[in-house]
Amino acid sequence: MSDKYIHGEKSSCPLAKALDVVGDRWTLLLLRDMLFYGKHEFREFLASAEGISTNILADRLKKLATAGILASFPHPQDRKRKFYYLTGKGKSLIHPLMALVRWSRRHLPDTYLSPEAAMELENNPEGMIRKALLLQERWEAEHLRS
Amino acid sequence: MSDKYIHGEKSSCPLAKALDVVGDRWTLLLLRDMLFYGKHEFREFLASAEGISTNILADRLKKLATAGILASFPHPQDRKRKFYYLTGKGKSLIHPLMALVRWSRRHLPDTYLSPEAAMELENNPEGMIRKALLLQERWEAEHLRS
Repeated sequence: MSDKYIHGEKSSCPLAKALDVVGDRWTLLLLRDMLFYGKHEFREFLASAEGISTNILADRLKKLATAGILASFPHPQDRKRKFYYLTGKGKSLIHPLMALVRWSRRHLPDTYLSPEAAMELENNPEGMIRKALLLQERWEAEHLRS
Repeated sequence: MSDKYIHGEKSSCPLAKALDVVGDRWTLLLLRDMLFYGKHEFREFLASAEGISTNILADRLKKLATAGILASFPHPQDRKRKFYYLTGKGKSLIHPLMALVRWSRRHLPDTYLSPEAAMELENNPEGMIRKALLLQERWEAEHLRS
């Protein structure tokens, strides 16, 4: 990589480009909420432990929609609410996120996972990924049918 | 995960904890410089395409040292210079970084890799990781011998 990776004015390094889109703490926590906690609504994201503010949350949802990582549609019973869901591009971010969770569990103190999740992360991370993606698909099958 | 992951005041979610340490664009670009470009000096990090400023660079190096992700020692010929190198904890961040590079190559436009690197990333990412870690070890064998 190095200097030859500059084409024009901006770095065209794949990692730098990825960080332009998802290299922000709140963005990654929001993707976690969708991928691992099965959250689909503004109020659900807002309720997460880290305490995101409404304006940052609104900004990040907008940026992720612009980047084609998530999409949304109005709640069928309440037009003031919206459902958010991940595109294929968004769902495949589960791989780097899972790799970061594994690094964290091995190297950082005081992280918490349920004993079942901890064991599965260690022994069958690919199975965890499949399960998480299956939950997304089930949600979509239920909510996106027109 | 969700609310039961709060122990005390702060989130103990493994991803949130990881982002406390490495959830910053400049930090991740610095780790890329060390892991993939084989950089070991302040002036080398400063020369990267993205144009990090000296004060942000100094801050991130200090934080990563405090977190046990890198360590440093004075240059043997010039005590004003320092060599930085990754600890085992730092080196194992290559897995999430590589996963993010793969995501970027598949889903983002206008990323650049040499044809050889692009082919190896697609066909043998584990081999790329081994090669990058081997380069770290060679550097250490040459510079850390006392």
